[in-house]
Amino acid sequence: MKNELQQLVEKYRPLCEQGKLADYIPVLGKQDPRSLGITVMTADGQTISAGMCPTQFTLQSISKVITLILAIMDCGEEEVFSKVGMEPTGDPFNSIYKMEVFAHTRPLNPMINAGAMVVSSLIKGDSIEQKVTRIIALVKQLTGISQVGVMEEVYESELEHAHRNRALVHIIKEMDLIKDVDMTLHTYLRQCAIRVDCEGLAKIGLCLAQDGKNEMGEQIIKPTIARLAKTFMVTCGMYNASGEFAIRVGIPAKSGVSGGILAAVPHKMGIGIVGPALDQKGNSIGGVALLTELAKRWNLSIF
Amino acid sequence: MKNELQQLVEKYRPLCEQGKLADYIPVLGKQDPRSLGITVMTADGQTISAGMCPTQFTLQSISKVITLILAIMDCGEEEVFSKVGMEPTGDPFNSIYKMEVFAHTRPLNPMINAGAMVVSSLIKGDSIEQKVTRIIALVKQLTGISQVGVMEEVYESELEHAHRNRALVHIIKEMDLIKDVDMTLHTYLRQCAIRVDCEGLAKIGLCLAQDGKNEMGEQIIKPTIARLAKTFMVTCGMYNASGEFAIRVGIPAKSGVSGGILAAVPHKMGIGIVGPALDQKGNSIGGVALLTELAKRWNLSIF
Amino acid sequence: MKNELQQLVEKYRPLCEQGKLADYIPVLGKQDPRSLGITVMTADGQTISAGMCPTQFTLQSISKVITLILAIMDCGEEEVFSKVGMEPTGDPFNSIYKMEVFAHTRPLNPMINAGAMVVSSLIKGDSIEQKVTRIIALVKQLTGISQVGVMEEVYESELEHAHRNRALVHIIKEMDLIKDVDMTLHTYLRQCAIRVDCEGLAKIGLCLAQDGKNEMGEQIIKPTIARLAKTFMVTCGMYNASGEFAIRVGIPAKSGVSGGILAAVPHKMGIGIVGPALDQKGNSIGGVALLTELAKRWNLSIF
Amino acid sequence: MKNELQQLVEKYRPLCEQGKLADYIPVLGKQDPRSLGITVMTADGQTISAGMCPTQFTLQSISKVITLILAIMDCGEEEVFSKVGMEPTGDPFNSIYKMEVFAHTRPLNPMINAGAMVVSSLIKGDSIEQKVTRIIALVKQLTGISQVGVMEEVYESELEHAHRNRALVHIIKEMDLIKDVDMTLHTYLRQCAIRVDCEGLAKIGLCLAQDGKNEMGEQIIKPTIARLAKTFMVTCGMYNASGEFAIRVGIPAKSGVSGGILAAVPHKMGIGIVGPALDQKGNSIGGVALLTELAKRWNLSIF
Repeated sequence: MKNELQQLVEKYRPLCEQGKLADYIPVLGKQDPRSLGITVMTADGQTISAGMCPTQFTLQSISKVITLILAIMDCGEEEVFSKVGMEPTGDPFNSIYKMEVFAHTRPLNPMINAGAMVVSSLIKGDSIEQKVTRIIALVKQLTGISQVGVMEEVYESELEHAHRNRALVHIIKEMDLIKDVDMTLHTYLRQCAIRVDCEGLAKIGLCLAQDGKNEMGEQIIKPTIARLAKTFMVTCGMYNASGEFAIRVGIPAKSGVSGGILAAVPHKMGIGIVGPALDQKGNSIGGVALLTELAKRWNLSIF
Repeated sequence: MKNELQQLVEKYRPLCEQGKLADYIPVLGKQDPRSLGITVMTADGQTISAGMCPTQFTLQSISKVITLILAIMDCGEEEVFSKVGMEPTGDPFNSIYKMEVFAHTRPLNPMINAGAMVVSSLIKGDSIEQKVTRIIALVKQLTGISQVGVMEEVYESELEHAHRNRALVHIIKEMDLIKDVDMTLHTYLRQCAIRVDCEGLAKIGLCLAQDGKNEMGEQIIKPTIARLAKTFMVTCGMYNASGEFAIRVGIPAKSGVSGGILAAVPHKMGIGIVGPALDQKGNSIGGVALLTELAKRWNLSIF
Repeated sequence: MKNELQQLVEKYRPLCEQGKLADYIPVLGKQDPRSLGITVMTADGQTISAGMCPTQFTLQSISKVITLILAIMDCGEEEVFSKVGMEPTGDPFNSIYKMEVFAHTRPLNPMINAGAMVVSSLIKGDSIEQKVTRIIALVKQLTGISQVGVMEEVYESELEHAHRNRALVHIIKEMDLIKDVDMTLHTYLRQCAIRVDCEGLAKIGLCLAQDGKNEMGEQIIKPTIARLAKTFMVTCGMYNASGEFAIRVGIPAKSGVSGGILAAVPHKMGIGIVGPALDQKGNSIGGVALLTELAKRWNLSIF
Repeated sequence: MKNELQQLVEKYRPLCEQGKLADYIPVLGKQDPRSLGITVMTADGQTISAGMCPTQFTLQSISKVITLILAIMDCGEEEVFSKVGMEPTGDPFNSIYKMEVFAHTRPLNPMINAGAMVVSSLIKGDSIEQKVTRIIALVKQLTGISQVGVMEEVYESELEHAHRNRALVHIIKEMDLIKDVDMTLHTYLRQCAIRVDCEGLAKIGLCLAQDGKNEMGEQIIKPTIARLAKTFMVTCGMYNASGEFAIRVGIPAKSGVSGGILAAVPHKMGIGIVGPALDQKGNSIGGVALLTELAKRWNLSIF
């Protein structure tokens, strides 16, 4: 299995050269576009890694899954989904038009930026620090990484270029979905800049795969919430390529513009991937190729 | 199990009164809004029905799953998906704006009307009759109903009120995705008017649930195509309520404005439902409630 | 004045090579892209022509002004504007999305195709022929050309490629704004194919410039209707370049994809232009340049 | 003439009760909805006022005309129109979707909020104060009011509720059309809160009517700029009711949500109106009615 993974990583590494770093966040633009790495953690206790990958990278949009889980733990499904919808959009993650054009009263789902910011605002805490500390605590618990923290350089870089996110946060404020504009924006940007590694992602994936039980068998997340998270990962997890990914791969997964992908194969395994070169929709180009072939070889599709 | 189904049907029948018949197609507006019925066909050979339901009703949008399967059988995935996308839209089924506004070169998916019409045009046959005969043949094979046919009264009624579908067919003609406007429109409207019953839908569901094998164990549909169909049913099967349905129910399903629902629980069962009273998104209001409770009771979610 | 006009035509003829014929209507694609001609007819009775221009060309969208006038003569302002709005759109002439997206109950104005088709349907007559005959009668009266008629070759060519217009006509039928889809579409396409020449356009322009009085002093159009037509020519006459044209030129004008422009300088003159090479918005590239310089030289802006 | 004006004001005062104050800006919501006043200043030197009107009110969107004039004086037409377009939009003044949906590289015109903020950023000055001081200086020169200033209470109130404008300013920052987000937003909000009276508006109107010459015959604004301003007032001056206003009234005019209207009848008169009760598009309901009847009685339409 280790050999197989290593061969596949080598097979798809050249593809990464056709991708593009997320250089609209300058720090992310400095990564090695050819790096590609994967960790698989199986339900029966194996952990296999392959490839050369950055030892650490940021969660970016993968954090939207974590904060959705935490917000539901904090406020319950009913409150969360009174302020954010459940429907895929077919639009890019930073799209703004639908809220105006269709007079929506809430963002369509928690995986687009506007929805994710509403979700972040629902996490308990009286300050940015309190909220972020609680998000980090959950990430620590899920990943078992003790030194989880915010990569300040990434956070600063994103903050500086957050014009679209600032527009979105003011729109959701206008819609009366959040209280504090700055607290919401900064919490969101800090959660995006949380540092993880491939093994950490694989552990989160395994926990979701096991309906909320971690590799030690402890119930970290309630089964209903774990299932809900996996469902959003299928319908909206890979930006506006989610539909094609569901067809071609069929694994609940969430990507980030850092090139990370968190994947959860129900009852079988968790997968963490990083490959910073992105395709046109913003997903790791090598990572998607790798998962597509793995899903076929190992018959991982849930469909 | 029979008792349980019967109790649930009675529990949700009153809800049907809050729904609305699809009276924009006058013939559909004449159905009994309080009727609600279900058939479950399990992988181990049981067939249980409950409720009073119209002995026969039309496929409407459920036909989009059948024609997608047939078009892929006829032309292959590559050709089909060169002309229609794989992404959910977040918009109503008859929406037209995205193709103009985002200069899309193809409809976003095969479950919206524009995409379904492109798919119908790809089915082999030199005339409307040939194409429809081949669709009916597949429905016969899948349902085991020998007298499958077009309900001419429904077809005539839809033809008369097909202004939006006519607009859509001219848009896809302008996009050069189809050859013959009339053949496409009439094939599509005739496929929508194909008559089935609940047991027929349950059989189709079971075949999809068993990766293309029918209740006799015969491989009617290739496993890859059956899986692909189920994936679209999850991401786009319940109109622009598909995301919520995936969260709340988690079963691949496709609805039609006749009030029918086709559902496939992988490896377990096929379900056919009809309840003509619709909710605001166009799904059977009683049928969705019934499936939601069944999914919880019997733990049917794929997530 | 004749010399000045001739020099200006020669000055801008080379610019025409940067334009593009409307070759989506194949017949229009066969014109000479370098041809450019103008006729000016002044309130004090002079008629000056310059340039080489096709002896005859079709009205295309210029016909929208004529039919608007006729529909108001036939039904009154109130009825016409209950079915079509008065606002410029900022969108291309064949745009469809706003009617869906903003749930408009009527097309935004009579100069976009959807609005113009609603207007055509309001012209009195029980058949396409009767309606078109009445439109032609008004064109004859306005232009003084006795052999006005439909260029059948252009009509046939447009009919064959009218996919977008067919989509639009079905949308306005769905909105219940017209009765007969075919009668509306064919009337509209035939009015677009009515043959005129530059002198004819100049005469129409002079009549509008003189608040509805023709060069003989006869009141052909009521002053209020003539003014209303000129207002639409300013706000929506040059497709989605109308705003810039108002700033740069400031003359009420209406263009067509045949390259024709009808212009009316209040109380001073009517101008007819033809130059089939179009700019990106669909206006005669040489014609707009010619009018821009004329407006400055002769101080023709109404602002 | 004074009697006539007084009768008309009384005639339309009851209509004001059908309007609505702009109470999304709380301070504006405290005005008397029944107040309606007008000042007419003619080219031959008469000044006639009628009605009871607030002695002072804020410019709001009327300021967009002033800043457009000043920005062109400062930077020239070419620079200004490289960053903002000239086309009417058909959308509300605070609309955001078109910039995303059509990938526009600049706001469609300087009369919508996004465009007006781009214009404000082009006014010379190194600080908010310097820019606003220069705007006020022009208002003083145009109105002859010596104590022009910002109504701080209105400014504070708008600042507090400026969520949509904040979203817009971040969008134009993302489009790289402005440098400093805060300077742009605050300059814009302060210009909106500049205090004027009806006579002041009438004077500005007369200056524009006389191609930039004030009532003393001094050339304050270059004729080309004055004409350009009047053209935008016709095509985009009355929000997305500009088209209808051009048809029904035909006078270059600009309204604000304070209920003010600035109107310029070329070569004849300037008109200032205030009536805080607004119609659905955001224009003074009594003011529009008053201008409509005046335009007919005195034959003021430019068309």
